Amino acid sequence: MGKGRLEAFSDGVIAIIITIMVLELKVPHEPTLEALHELWPTFLSYVLSFVYVGIYWNNHHHLMHTAQSVSGGVMWANLHFLFWLSLFPFTTAWMGENHFEALPTALYGVVLLMAAASWVVLQFAIMRHDGCESPLRRALGRDLKGKLSPLLYLSAIALSFYQRWIADLIYVAVAMMWLVPDRRIESPD
Amino acid sequence: MGKGRLEAFSDGVIAIIITIMVLELKVPHEPTLEALHELWPTFLSYVLSFVYVGIYWNNHHHLMHTAQSVSGGVMWANLHFLFWLSLFPFTTAWMGENHFEALPTALYGVVLLMAAASWVVLQFAIMRHDGCESPLRRALGRDLKGKLSPLLYLSAIALSFYQRWIADLIYVAVAMMWLVPDRRIESPD
Amino acid sequence: MGKGRLEAFSDGVIAIIITIMVLELKVPHEPTLEALHELWPTFLSYVLSFVYVGIYWNNHHHLMHTAQSVSGGVMWANLHFLFWLSLFPFTTAWMGENHFEALPTALYGVVLLMAAASWVVLQFAIMRHDGCESPLRRALGRDLKGKLSPLLYLSAIALSFYQRWIADLIYVAVAMMWLVPDRRIESPD
Amino acid sequence: MGKGRLEAFSDGVIAIIITIMVLELKVPHEPTLEALHELWPTFLSYVLSFVYVGIYWNNHHHLMHTAQSVSGGVMWANLHFLFWLSLFPFTTAWMGENHFEALPTALYGVVLLMAAASWVVLQFAIMRHDGCESPLRRALGRDLKGKLSPLLYLSAIALSFYQRWIADLIYVAVAMMWLVPDRRIESPD
Repeated sequence: MGKGRLEAFSDGVIAIIITIMVLELKVPHEPTLEALHELWPTFLSYVLSFVYVGIYWNNHHHLMHTAQSVSGGVMWANLHFLFWLSLFPFTTAWMGENHFEALPTALYGVVLLMAAASWVVLQFAIMRHDGCESPLRRALGRDLKGKLSPLLYLSAIALSFYQRWIADLIYVAVAMMWLVPDRRIESPD
Repeated sequence: MGKGRLEAFSDGVIAIIITIMVLELKVPHEPTLEALHELWPTFLSYVLSFVYVGIYWNNHHHLMHTAQSVSGGVMWANLHFLFWLSLFPFTTAWMGENHFEALPTALYGVVLLMAAASWVVLQFAIMRHDGCESPLRRALGRDLKGKLSPLLYLSAIALSFYQRWIADLIYVAVAMMWLVPDRRIESPD
Repeated sequence: MGKGRLEAFSDGVIAIIITIMVLELKVPHEPTLEALHELWPTFLSYVLSFVYVGIYWNNHHHLMHTAQSVSGGVMWANLHFLFWLSLFPFTTAWMGENHFEALPTALYGVVLLMAAASWVVLQFAIMRHDGCESPLRRALGRDLKGKLSPLLYLSAIALSFYQRWIADLIYVAVAMMWLVPDRRIESPD
Repeated sequence: MGKGRLEAFSDGVIAIIITIMVLELKVPHEPTLEALHELWPTFLSYVLSFVYVGIYWNNHHHLMHTAQSVSGGVMWANLHFLFWLSLFPFTTAWMGENHFEALPTALYGVVLLMAAASWVVLQFAIMRHDGCESPLRRALGRDLKGKLSPLLYLSAIALSFYQRWIADLIYVAVAMMWLVPDRRIESPD
């Protein structure tokens, strides 16, 4: 089974997710600076999520490049990953509109954590399908970033209820860490 | 006539359907657990519909793989199928927001039933166009799951007005039954 | 310049137009038959517009098939056509929510008319770019349906203010007339 | 790394941006000419933004045509460009709903300016990746339009607070200037 349609479908879903997030930036009725100023937290959370979805799209591109073909298992692992990604607009808007309050900040981290977990499952599904000679297996190596991120998300979720600004900073830091393109996978092409 | 654009268009429509369903998960104004808790039924109905749309996308992928070319009839059978799929966001939100009440649960089943019926029509259109040697004809075999699902939907619609939880469980059960990838079609590739 | 991206972009825009129209089918807050019943006109106008957009997508598919390559002029003629198509969700919802009142029914016809006009412009742009041997030129022939539709739209717009149901019936009749796939273009492939 | 998926993803995002802008054309509840008349400024700003997004899509098509392959840097430059484009629906709606008031008109220009700046960054990223023989480098030439536009946007932003109609006219003029397809890039194909 070819991987073309899986890539096209994922591109479509990710493109829609990244774009509908901007709909939560509700257009104010007054043409004033105050009205605009109130949107500041929503805008910041939109930027953060745009970067996260961009990172995932970028890595998805690399990941699928290493896959040789796709099985039914890979397809469902991919849909499972897209499911968690589809919750980004919700958690982003909730966190932004409530000015990075404790609970929305924690939930934002939970969805980030689940997306990261489903990403690992997707990687495993591809490696299992492609067998021992999977290029992904060699490319991944120790996967330090992949192992560090869930730990950082977990600590941010816990910190949300005590020092929520540190939790938000951790989300920013993890995004920064991933912004560097994943050379492990990019190189073997 | 090539089938590339039909696949691309269907991927686009299905990607949008699966993603806009999440917009019905209305972002609450309070950052509290109570506000989140009220979204529980809407979230559950979203998960169920996400799985159903995922199943249809998956099977659409397999189905089109067996089609050798497409006619105008196949195109309209495909649009007819996409029409019923496009009503999923509506019935999903109505059922979720009304906590799985009788009528919304029944309507959810009616749209599932119509989608299943339009799927059968699409299969017939492809088989008719491809003629006797249609790979789909051979692949389908007895099509037990395809024959069972409408019966189960019908019984769920009837049960909605008496034991609505059983109706909901039937929807979950049919989804589970289809989650197993359709090996009849997958194998002959 | 290849036509692949123009097709992909048009597929994307048309897929989004056909899908966001369903968002105007506002989910009622009550789980009752009365609440559902009020949506009847909105649903009918959705079905009508779904068929129209489906017809245009189908014909776009055929049209682009006959184009040999695309110029900047064809690209802008295509965007111009997509612009009028993008107004369908607005006129559809306005007509549906106001129960096929005179003015919304007339505006619905105006947008149909403009879409038909921009379609003719797109055909001319392709024929001009492809020159005398344009397969489209031969395929079009007398283009009876293409000449009849604008006249029917015009009469429906005028009738909206006197006998609006006849206007609505004309919209349905034109859609029926086009539902038959455009064999003039399909055959020479 | 191939450029196919980058093109497909950009097409998807741009198609969604151009289409969701129409959602800001809120469907009025009354079937009257007055209700329609109030939408006039929103409609005008929609047309203007539709043309701008159309121009960018057109130029993106040409730009990617000259790129020989894409690096991680090009991908992020592209996402950065799409980010500013994703703010068009917001600024368009804010300007339209507030009848081209000073501040919304200025912000509309700021986002146009940032989109133009990110476009320049994207061009540089492609030229840097493709090296000295980059076809884009030769194609761009003096790039008069590319240098003039930011200056015009800047003057429009300043004028918004004094003569906002002149600012709006400048936006229209820049769009007109770009509507002529970019022959510098188109020719070397």
